[in-house]
Amino acid sequence: MEDLLTESDAPAPAGTTFFDTQLGFAVRRECAPVLDLPPFAVPEDYVARRADLGAAEVNRRLLRAAGIGTYVIETGHRSDEILTPEQMAEVTGAGHAEVVRLEVIAEQVAARVEPADFPAAYRAALDDALRTAVGVKTIAAYRGGLDLDPERPTDDEVVAAVAAWTRCAEGPLRLTDPVLVRFGWWEAVDRQAVVQVHVGYGDPDVDLHRCNPLLMTELFRRTRGTGVRFALLHCYPYHREAGYLAHVFEHVYCDVGLAVNFTGAQSPQVVAESLELTPFHKALFSSDAFGAAELYHLGALLFRRGLGQALSEWGRTAGWPTEEQLRVARMVGSENARRLYRLENPTTGG
Amino acid sequence: MEDLLTESDAPAPAGTTFFDTQLGFAVRRECAPVLDLPPFAVPEDYVARRADLGAAEVNRRLLRAAGIGTYVIETGHRSDEILTPEQMAEVTGAGHAEVVRLEVIAEQVAARVEPADFPAAYRAALDDALRTAVGVKTIAAYRGGLDLDPERPTDDEVVAAVAAWTRCAEGPLRLTDPVLVRFGWWEAVDRQAVVQVHVGYGDPDVDLHRCNPLLMTELFRRTRGTGVRFALLHCYPYHREAGYLAHVFEHVYCDVGLAVNFTGAQSPQVVAESLELTPFHKALFSSDAFGAAELYHLGALLFRRGLGQALSEWGRTAGWPTEEQLRVARMVGSENARRLYRLENPTTGG
Amino acid sequence: MEDLLTESDAPAPAGTTFFDTQLGFAVRRECAPVLDLPPFAVPEDYVARRADLGAAEVNRRLLRAAGIGTYVIETGHRSDEILTPEQMAEVTGAGHAEVVRLEVIAEQVAARVEPADFPAAYRAALDDALRTAVGVKTIAAYRGGLDLDPERPTDDEVVAAVAAWTRCAEGPLRLTDPVLVRFGWWEAVDRQAVVQVHVGYGDPDVDLHRCNPLLMTELFRRTRGTGVRFALLHCYPYHREAGYLAHVFEHVYCDVGLAVNFTGAQSPQVVAESLELTPFHKALFSSDAFGAAELYHLGALLFRRGLGQALSEWGRTAGWPTEEQLRVARMVGSENARRLYRLENPTTGG
Repeated sequence: MEDLLTESDAPAPAGTTFFDTQLGFAVRRECAPVLDLPPFAVPEDYVARRADLGAAEVNRRLLRAAGIGTYVIETGHRSDEILTPEQMAEVTGAGHAEVVRLEVIAEQVAARVEPADFPAAYRAALDDALRTAVGVKTIAAYRGGLDLDPERPTDDEVVAAVAAWTRCAEGPLRLTDPVLVRFGWWEAVDRQAVVQVHVGYGDPDVDLHRCNPLLMTELFRRTRGTGVRFALLHCYPYHREAGYLAHVFEHVYCDVGLAVNFTGAQSPQVVAESLELTPFHKALFSSDAFGAAELYHLGALLFRRGLGQALSEWGRTAGWPTEEQLRVARMVGSENARRLYRLENPTTGG
Repeated sequence: MEDLLTESDAPAPAGTTFFDTQLGFAVRRECAPVLDLPPFAVPEDYVARRADLGAAEVNRRLLRAAGIGTYVIETGHRSDEILTPEQMAEVTGAGHAEVVRLEVIAEQVAARVEPADFPAAYRAALDDALRTAVGVKTIAAYRGGLDLDPERPTDDEVVAAVAAWTRCAEGPLRLTDPVLVRFGWWEAVDRQAVVQVHVGYGDPDVDLHRCNPLLMTELFRRTRGTGVRFALLHCYPYHREAGYLAHVFEHVYCDVGLAVNFTGAQSPQVVAESLELTPFHKALFSSDAFGAAELYHLGALLFRRGLGQALSEWGRTAGWPTEEQLRVARMVGSENARRLYRLENPTTGG
Repeated sequence: MEDLLTESDAPAPAGTTFFDTQLGFAVRRECAPVLDLPPFAVPEDYVARRADLGAAEVNRRLLRAAGIGTYVIETGHRSDEILTPEQMAEVTGAGHAEVVRLEVIAEQVAARVEPADFPAAYRAALDDALRTAVGVKTIAAYRGGLDLDPERPTDDEVVAAVAAWTRCAEGPLRLTDPVLVRFGWWEAVDRQAVVQVHVGYGDPDVDLHRCNPLLMTELFRRTRGTGVRFALLHCYPYHREAGYLAHVFEHVYCDVGLAVNFTGAQSPQVVAESLELTPFHKALFSSDAFGAAELYHLGALLFRRGLGQALSEWGRTAGWPTEEQLRVARMVGSENARRLYRLENPTTGG
């Protein structure tokens, strides 16, 4: 349990606990009552109660309490260990839709075809995935950073990169070659997809200074008018930079997903900062939840609370009427994502 | 009208409007009443009322409501489409002073003299401009970024750069050569001018990560004691970095001009952050307004409100007496600019 | 006196005073009463009263008012002009412990041995210092920045670097060679020391954009599990980045020391931001005070107030019980430092 409370991959130092973090405090305060414990139950009681109830019941309670209408779920990370989108829908009683990971498609394709056949096979696989998926995701941030050449690579460059990559590989393929990351980006552009970009804060594999979304400025500039749309995810501590990009580029959207969970009681400030430049019609909600059901519940609860605090503060100090506050809340909390991912359209799984 | 509410140059996505931004909300809340509409009038009514009243009346109302005592106006951008400083003074009943754009002078001079004559002609043109102008402005941020060699170029380098630039140019000259940008900076240093530096947030032409004012640190270090002063404009999201520079370098000033308008209800936090390290005697106000009269009115109103909120908060939590709050407000809102630009001095147009 | 209110090294511009800063306002508000003056006494009265009382009495009053239990003092900067840790203990009635500066040790060793003997002599000197010191400090930020090769240099590289450095040196040796800075880092790693890293905001010698702690990510990655611990000091304006590092790396700690003093009435926001990602068991307090006793008093007072404001806000908006608020305050204000520096252990001087 405790290891799901952190993006670190090491235990807390002796004499300390990950429960002593913003996220840990939020779990004790907000999730404990959902499991019939008093607010701020001590960690030992929380862990014990969780085990008593069993994973299925804990998931059911926390996910339903989240009040999420449609889960848009990216399935590229340890997908054999977590619920499928369909299972999530069953547990939660909510709608569902899938997002596929560009780098995972490349790894799967490279494992089964010759380098010379990679470009065509990748294109076919992506077409196939987009028959049901509502978007794609890139984790370039975890695979070397976002400061890549914005130029589209040629097929020859792609074939050479696949050959070099697969020739030396041992064990499961892991894509880090920038040529192939860029190839995936441009194939998504060609398909006018929604491209989720993991930005900023992540685990110890990330070189955070290579994850500033401003490093993608030239790519955004070159893809104006193509029909592609980019959704910058999480973005902390670069959420103001992400807001700037969403302000100047009509096809860039952003959220502060993961940051809301991990900044806990401080998340209202982070949410407010993310709405400085981001147009209200391009700000999104996400939970970045993975694994622990707590993250879904808290992601939704803290975002609602943070946005609510920001909006009522702006009502008080800047005169925003209640109905305008509610309208912004509806846009950010639901309508923008529904429009972006076309979730009303039954052929896309919403 | 709507395109003046954004630094983007593309329309909002289908089904959305630039009025759904911090700036759009501020226009509806604060400008609508100046045009006899109720607060938060719907965008359609606002646009219609604006057309009914006519540009002259709208300008007169909004500019006078701004309550600005002296307009310091930079005239290098689309100057044939906007009011001259003299016309602004007439419309507003306020004082006026002019700031000239270093890169525009270079473009004008390069268009009329041979490369070999450029250095002398540029110097003469700058001397001439500074007979009336109270300062110069550089838009290096829009022309490749601020990470330039801090060394002064030689005249030979300048002549070669002008020759290379003008030889291949088609249409109106547009300066991007870093040698010539640096030449302008150093000529301004020699004249002990006030050099306004556009920093940070701007339109889609800007590579924002090349606009961090820290990239100019070495130039600031080398120009200590020369008499030149630098005013860093806007600075968002690098306003804390700008405050640091104003703290350690006695000849660096800063403001959060444009950011105040575009962050709207969130601007009090931005204003407060800008006053963390900036000495109170070197913080400035600016509107960065261009074109739409709304930007002048809101720039002034939101800055006053944001500064007022910060000061009264600091009164409440840190015990600042009212008279000290007012003294800081006078410094930042007016006295610092008057001292920096020597606006009391009648020979400089104040 | 006035020059201790700034990290700049030049006088304030004519007609202005460093008292018109966040720090100056805090001195007038909080230190004046300790010297029997009314809050917000005018600067002239403050300076006169300070001279009347004499340095010894001023130090005694302000340091005791600080309420610091144990002073952990780094002695590498102008140590002949300030009180020794023992003298501080006498003046304050508090415990004391020493931190030694890696670069100063290198300068002292290089001045007395041949290059070929430098590695062994440095190691012996560091072992000797760590017999009593509770940690080491690196000021690489002031000596070229933090973006250094994370690789450990060989002894041959070290000897060559010392030879090159000392051959051309005139006057006192000043270490800037990155090979020797890295050598000191790795020797500290070998000794499982606590390494204080000066990060971010400093005087005009610093290139702040080379002081982002993210530039040390690879070093942190390579030293996991070695037993070394890093304490990132000050960190402004990179305190969110520092919090990220403390979140993902179990051996990274951080504080916002100096920033609290210099941001004054705004410091509650800075303190709150520093606790977004930093686990509560790895956040530290420091004053970064040097020279003026005011900095010790204000560093402690403003940090307590800022942390108190943040905690009670989180109590109000996020439901943190009072006892949990107090527990976090104890961890951050004292327990974490005592555990990190092993201050209870009598052999380390606590």
